[in-house]
Amino acid sequence: MNHLWLNGEILTTDTARIDPSDRGFLLGDGLFETMAAWNGAVSALPAHYARLAQGAEFLRIPLGHSCSDVSTACRHLLEANHVESATIRLTLTRGPGPRGLLPPSSPAPTLLLTAAALPPQEQPPLRLITASIRRDENSPLSRIKTLNYLPGVLARIEAAEAGADDALMLNHQGFVAEASAANILVRLGGQWFTPPVAHGALPGIRRAELLKNRVREAPIMPAQLSQAEGIFTSTALALRPVIEIDGHPIPQCPPPN
Amino acid sequence: MNHLWLNGEILTTDTARIDPSDRGFLLGDGLFETMAAWNGAVSALPAHYARLAQGAEFLRIPLGHSCSDVSTACRHLLEANHVESATIRLTLTRGPGPRGLLPPSSPAPTLLLTAAALPPQEQPPLRLITASIRRDENSPLSRIKTLNYLPGVLARIEAAEAGADDALMLNHQGFVAEASAANILVRLGGQWFTPPVAHGALPGIRRAELLKNRVREAPIMPAQLSQAEGIFTSTALALRPVIEIDGHPIPQCPPPN
Repeated sequence: MNHLWLNGEILTTDTARIDPSDRGFLLGDGLFETMAAWNGAVSALPAHYARLAQGAEFLRIPLGHSCSDVSTACRHLLEANHVESATIRLTLTRGPGPRGLLPPSSPAPTLLLTAAALPPQEQPPLRLITASIRRDENSPLSRIKTLNYLPGVLARIEAAEAGADDALMLNHQGFVAEASAANILVRLGGQWFTPPVAHGALPGIRRAELLKNRVREAPIMPAQLSQAEGIFTSTALALRPVIEIDGHPIPQCPPPN
Repeated sequence: MNHLWLNGEILTTDTARIDPSDRGFLLGDGLFETMAAWNGAVSALPAHYARLAQGAEFLRIPLGHSCSDVSTACRHLLEANHVESATIRLTLTRGPGPRGLLPPSSPAPTLLLTAAALPPQEQPPLRLITASIRRDENSPLSRIKTLNYLPGVLARIEAAEAGADDALMLNHQGFVAEASAANILVRLGGQWFTPPVAHGALPGIRRAELLKNRVREAPIMPAQLSQAEGIFTSTALALRPVIEIDGHPIPQCPPPN
């Protein structure tokens, strides 16, 4: 998929240019969403857009595009790549700026949409390790999906170096927060639980869907995971079973939806 | 100053291109240094390079350039801009990558050097407010100068919205950590103090110089600031006096060097 959508234009990935003074590049000053498009339609687009808009308001980045604009942009992106289904990543930054932290008084935000293949529907179960790097549940930034993603990157690297597929991240209090880029669902006593946002869990779009029905929020201590009847990671793209954490086997069960 | 140095090439700022798949742009996956060049020489370049190399090792980003390489690149940057003195920002990212957090097995890091005017030698004293966003002293990322700079950006925005020049950032325990992008020096009982790195202070290059002589590390509670005999912010570019914090006047005194 060698075409992307950048500030209203369809361009090839090898010619599209991000300005070296873009604050997304220089300061991680922006947000993103990862979405699944199936048969030409983006799943849960209004929910993704609402989270993006909420994050943009918190960061004072003028979004400047309606949900309908984003929907049209996604359609153009899929058409340009001659696909109907894809993983679509939306990146919004505050755009170029002069040196320093203070945003320009009239920012010209950058909006980028890129497409990649959807992950296979059936993926092997995940082996996790517990990362040494923690989620900062005390920061309001843990509630929005920002470009400040180094804790997740470090956790993922730590997992790879340990021969694992992904990492479980705890918060500073020692409670389970999430995986490196996914929420965590844990089955205990026949009921599914997921860590609260106040514990450092990103308010995931699929997580919100699951909380309407079969999953409840609850604090989860790492020690409880050894009693789990099943564990899944949850993203907009997939629910994936966890088969092992830090070398300890996790039972397999059907997912909660 | 309309020329920059990007991966070995001198380019104009309006033609230089950051790849949209650069992990610096997508994930804040990188580091930076801000340095002062005077009469063609970069101040404390070995110290900046050592901090960069330490951060790159922690993030597992292959730096791929010696201190001498960076020195040469800075010289070319100054020459291309026909200046002898400038603020030079160095940005190192892990470079382009496929979708997801896992770094490519053979990353091609991006190294960018840009130049801007040095700030005036004499600058007016700063009025600070205490930011609501905190420094995460528990994270190892608070010890290195990463592109995950949103806490500082938010603090700086909060200051601007309150009509102040900059923000004081506390850590999660409530101790003074630093300003939005500068260390803090506080004179108490005739002695200069600066918060320890363990309290969320970035290990600043000028801070390290000052610690060799006239400044000591000590925990600083916000309440102590009202007894200060003088307060300065400290960066590689300047020491600046603080004249007010949250509306309370701070006495003026000479800087500690």
